Amino acid sequence: MKVHIHISLKNGVLDPQGKAIEDALTNLGFDKVENVRQGKFIEFDIDESDPAEARKQATEMCERLLANTVVENYRVDLE
Amino acid sequence: MKVHIHISLKNGVLDPQGKAIEDALTNLGFDKVENVRQGKFIEFDIDESDPAEARKQATEMCERLLANTVVENYRVDLE
Repeated sequence: MKVHIHISLKNGVLDPQGKAIEDALTNLGFDKVENVRQGKFIEFDIDESDPAEARKQATEMCERLLANTVVENYRVDLE
Repeated sequence: MKVHIHISLKNGVLDPQGKAIEDALTNLGFDKVENVRQGKFIEFDIDESDPAEARKQATEMCERLLANTVVENYRVDLE
């Protein structure tokens, strides 16, 4: 089973990388772009056939290692 | 219109970050996980009502700035 995890900064947390990308895009002439936010995503295979169990494990991975839940949100998708 | 861009390393390109995450997860006891890959995603608003034009611009952004097309793939989604 394939797991996709999206990790993004919470609303209200400054995102300097996003701001840098927005400035660079504007300088290149893409001036219709705003509210750029950058996050990361992680995908992996998990040897688990029960979707509920796979989701539970992925959520625990986020809480314990992958996301900094003070400033980041995460989303788990299964495929 | 909201644009989501996923950028990931091409197959065959070494992903040391993904490997580090996999090792860390294994050390934490998540031993059913394999083939961990890490990528980034970028989301932004674009002041453009035509989906085809928005996609064209987002693709151009990827080619010119956001993705290193030598080693990275990108995917554009509109919402």
